Amino acid sequence: MTATTSLQIARAATLKPIEDVADMMGLGRHLLDPYGTGVAKIDLAAIDELADRPTAKYVVVSAVTPTPLGEGKTTTTIGLGQGLNRTGRRAVIAIRQPSLGPTLGIKGGGAGGGRSQVLPMERLNLHLTGDMHAVTAAHNQLAAMIDNAVFRATTSDLDLDPAAITWRRVLDVDDRSLRNIVLGLGGRGDGVPRQSGFDITAASEVMATLALSRSLRDLRDRLGRIVVGYTRGPRPRPVTAEDLHAAGTMTVLLRDALKPNLLQTHENTPALVHCGPFGNIATGNSSVVADLIGIHGGDFLVTEAGFGADMGAERFFNLKCRVSGLTPDAAVLVTTVRALKMHSGRHKVVAGRPLPAELLAENPDDVYAGADNLRKQIDNIELHGVTPVVAINAFGDDHASEHAAIRDIASRAGVRCAVSTHFTDGGAGAAELADAVAEAAAEPNDFGYLYSTEVDLWKKIETIATRVYGADGVDYSADATKSLQRYTRFGWGGLPICMAKTHLSLSSDPTLRGAPIGWRLPVREVRASVGAGFIYPICGQMQTMPGLGSDPAAAHIDIDEGGNTVGLF
Amino acid sequence: MTATTSLQIARAATLKPIEDVADMMGLGRHLLDPYGTGVAKIDLAAIDELADRPTAKYVVVSAVTPTPLGEGKTTTTIGLGQGLNRTGRRAVIAIRQPSLGPTLGIKGGGAGGGRSQVLPMERLNLHLTGDMHAVTAAHNQLAAMIDNAVFRATTSDLDLDPAAITWRRVLDVDDRSLRNIVLGLGGRGDGVPRQSGFDITAASEVMATLALSRSLRDLRDRLGRIVVGYTRGPRPRPVTAEDLHAAGTMTVLLRDALKPNLLQTHENTPALVHCGPFGNIATGNSSVVADLIGIHGGDFLVTEAGFGADMGAERFFNLKCRVSGLTPDAAVLVTTVRALKMHSGRHKVVAGRPLPAELLAENPDDVYAGADNLRKQIDNIELHGVTPVVAINAFGDDHASEHAAIRDIASRAGVRCAVSTHFTDGGAGAAELADAVAEAAAEPNDFGYLYSTEVDLWKKIETIATRVYGADGVDYSADATKSLQRYTRFGWGGLPICMAKTHLSLSSDPTLRGAPIGWRLPVREVRASVGAGFIYPICGQMQTMPGLGSDPAAAHIDIDEGGNTVGLF
Repeated sequence: MTATTSLQIARAATLKPIEDVADMMGLGRHLLDPYGTGVAKIDLAAIDELADRPTAKYVVVSAVTPTPLGEGKTTTTIGLGQGLNRTGRRAVIAIRQPSLGPTLGIKGGGAGGGRSQVLPMERLNLHLTGDMHAVTAAHNQLAAMIDNAVFRATTSDLDLDPAAITWRRVLDVDDRSLRNIVLGLGGRGDGVPRQSGFDITAASEVMATLALSRSLRDLRDRLGRIVVGYTRGPRPRPVTAEDLHAAGTMTVLLRDALKPNLLQTHENTPALVHCGPFGNIATGNSSVVADLIGIHGGDFLVTEAGFGADMGAERFFNLKCRVSGLTPDAAVLVTTVRALKMHSGRHKVVAGRPLPAELLAENPDDVYAGADNLRKQIDNIELHGVTPVVAINAFGDDHASEHAAIRDIASRAGVRCAVSTHFTDGGAGAAELADAVAEAAAEPNDFGYLYSTEVDLWKKIETIATRVYGADGVDYSADATKSLQRYTRFGWGGLPICMAKTHLSLSSDPTLRGAPIGWRLPVREVRASVGAGFIYPICGQMQTMPGLGSDPAAAHIDIDEGGNTVGLF
Repeated sequence: MTATTSLQIARAATLKPIEDVADMMGLGRHLLDPYGTGVAKIDLAAIDELADRPTAKYVVVSAVTPTPLGEGKTTTTIGLGQGLNRTGRRAVIAIRQPSLGPTLGIKGGGAGGGRSQVLPMERLNLHLTGDMHAVTAAHNQLAAMIDNAVFRATTSDLDLDPAAITWRRVLDVDDRSLRNIVLGLGGRGDGVPRQSGFDITAASEVMATLALSRSLRDLRDRLGRIVVGYTRGPRPRPVTAEDLHAAGTMTVLLRDALKPNLLQTHENTPALVHCGPFGNIATGNSSVVADLIGIHGGDFLVTEAGFGADMGAERFFNLKCRVSGLTPDAAVLVTTVRALKMHSGRHKVVAGRPLPAELLAENPDDVYAGADNLRKQIDNIELHGVTPVVAINAFGDDHASEHAAIRDIASRAGVRCAVSTHFTDGGAGAAELADAVAEAAAEPNDFGYLYSTEVDLWKKIETIATRVYGADGVDYSADATKSLQRYTRFGWGGLPICMAKTHLSLSSDPTLRGAPIGWRLPVREVRASVGAGFIYPICGQMQTMPGLGSDPAAAHIDIDEGGNTVGLF
């Protein structure tokens, strides 16, 4: 890479017309709605039209428990797609849409980087085709209709208890000041005062619902099932978006947002970019509909799942695949030298600060000392009957002995391993990984869900906690127990589980490294995303509205003399 | 119209490919970014590329003081464009983008209706190309950066007084509960509590700024000048978006939103749809850049100005034309039988209720009794040296004698008049109006601004109040006087004025009909939109965040069995 920046690489790339990219997937022009240069929405009719084409091998990209910097799942997904194409296989990739808040906050863009980027990166990192904003609009329209019912006292028709409203508002911005507010202040005509707040749009149940819908009708039905609060009295019942007559409008606001966006990588690999549900409290996976289209778009569909394998991949298997009906053929576990060194417990990695010199020094022993995390995440893939492939996402300051250590750990676990230099070298740098993934995906498939939805909510939670996280058991607060009982009574006992746990540890304590043992998972609270279709136990403090740092990315973004965007990447 | 609905007409229309529509304006494909079927954004390079083509006649569409139902300015703008085309002239129209809040609230869509519609109406009425959402994002990013400065106490670097922050937040929704809030509640990490609130996105200064910018660079500079609050101490100074390092990011968030959107009417007339600044507190006019492109796109550019001629047209002449440098050749004054009958003071028109039977009964005397309003609005056009044309927007329950009365009133005022049945008949119904407008626009032009920006703020306000509104003078509150003194000291005395007055009367009292005399204009408060580039005196209560009604439009919008949108129109 030397002095070449991601932005320079992006500017130097030659994009194909998006119609040609679609053609590589077998998508005719009648299925495309172009949205500016290099971007098109895909009509959902594509799902049926492509159904007779061969089914691609389905590969999910997950990771070891990451450092706060992230280990490069998105660049690996992009690089692997390019690598498969370079080695003669036709691949399509599927990733999430980045969220504007973090992009303008601390994180920077979510379009990959170096020679593994999705382009046009500026569009991708900003509004793209407006899907995020459509989610914001649909979510807040429901909120306005709730407070309008409170204002007009028509809540009495519904028996909705204003003190039991759980639906908040959302904005795609990092703005801690909106976390907790009192609204409805002012005069008699300005609403009824009550406490509420804003989450970031990615954390909206509407986003999770959009990502888990199979069709426009399915979306309509799910939105109607969204629970916004509860009735008054000793035996409260749920009140839904349907009860408020809001689900139809929400569907209409989302009808274009339900269509996946087609872009391309730096090397012209088709890239589906669709939905961005928050990883902390929702699935952290891109959309079902994007994968239902992509699965017939080539020889391989490479899809990314957020966070480590205990989080994103577990939800991919048990939530997303359960909805889509698709069966994964292989799972990539992105691993870095720095992550395993961190898991040794001997080094600390802090977001926004340079890596410590001791961590960068050659030391394969530290890599071995952090291997428990990799081994446990390998187990977490194999638990679902899927073949893992360890991908070493290589950094310039890695040492060969450290890569050798990771290869050795993988080999002892009986798992394929490849070094990938896709960031520096693009698809050519991911050729070894592409071959390993192709071999793994060719093996007989034994995929199965971790749990049946027919077992009760407690059993489902305990299965994930003990088998995936390595906990000895689960401790429920009184509040959590009450919620689980209530949800069971409401008939939601058959929903799957989306655990809201820190992604920075296999345990619920973000400071614990490696593969912690001898601990129990505390469930403080349990919430229901009935529209999206899951129950989510809260294990620890989950932040659903980020704040800006002391020197946010936004303060450095501008246009230059020629009108070009600078500072975004 | 009989039983044919606007929606049926829209569905039956044959849209041309948007590239062909652009071609009618001389816009090559290299200047277009298609955004879904039937919609494209136009690159601002078009302003220079088209500059050598002939300049169109520039026609602004305004109205008498409207009833709360509106008198059909948008349908007349569309119908006139179609009528000009039908009568052998090449026309382009320019309208504002409807706001999602009112569309889902009480108002219904803003895409015209009947046989004078802009299509695709569903796209137009919902997200279109996301410009509204981009304004929301840019506005709220600045808000987040302000509260981040408060939280981090870096306001001390700027000396920003947290109690003197004037920048609120915005959302494109009707939500009275957000008008007045306390934010920053919660724990120590959740910001600093203070009072604030949300306006609807159309009321954002960012929207007004976008509409009044001539180029990306101009937008960047204006955004930097936005004042968000004031410093501490006895002689406060303004603090700007530039001081907060937010203007660059805001520009980048708005770079696509600055490009006008091209759609077409039901009869394939090119339609520029761009920006939607609130009429109450901002210009209520579509964008300068749309008109700078449209002015070279045919023989006529028909552009709409919100509210009556005292409001939208006055701002069009003195704010928008001052920025664009364009010179209007004629002004259409949309007039209805019902509006003049209301101005007689003998009838009441209430939004959301059917017109009273007495108003609908044949009665030309009532029309004559309301003529003062029409005469005064004719004066308001002629004050600026522009030739008015009275357009009678015909309704099915009008009587010929009533149309004759309006023709007579116009004739006595020496002004052309035409009946237009564009709603029922499309462009064919606007042929008489098209001929009258063409004649008026062919007359020698004597356009001039109402006031020089060099006179002081008091003098500018008084000129508008006395000459346009017919007031005897202006009464300033102590607060208003103090603000005007302060703004003059800050060097803003040279800015033009955007009066925030009710649109339901020529006076500041919304209940006064006709052309009230013997009254003085009370200025309660004066605010500054330094980025957009105007000072706005507040005369009366201005609502900047609508609320939902008891039976909002949103409750009736849905998808049908076939997945089509229903209930939106």
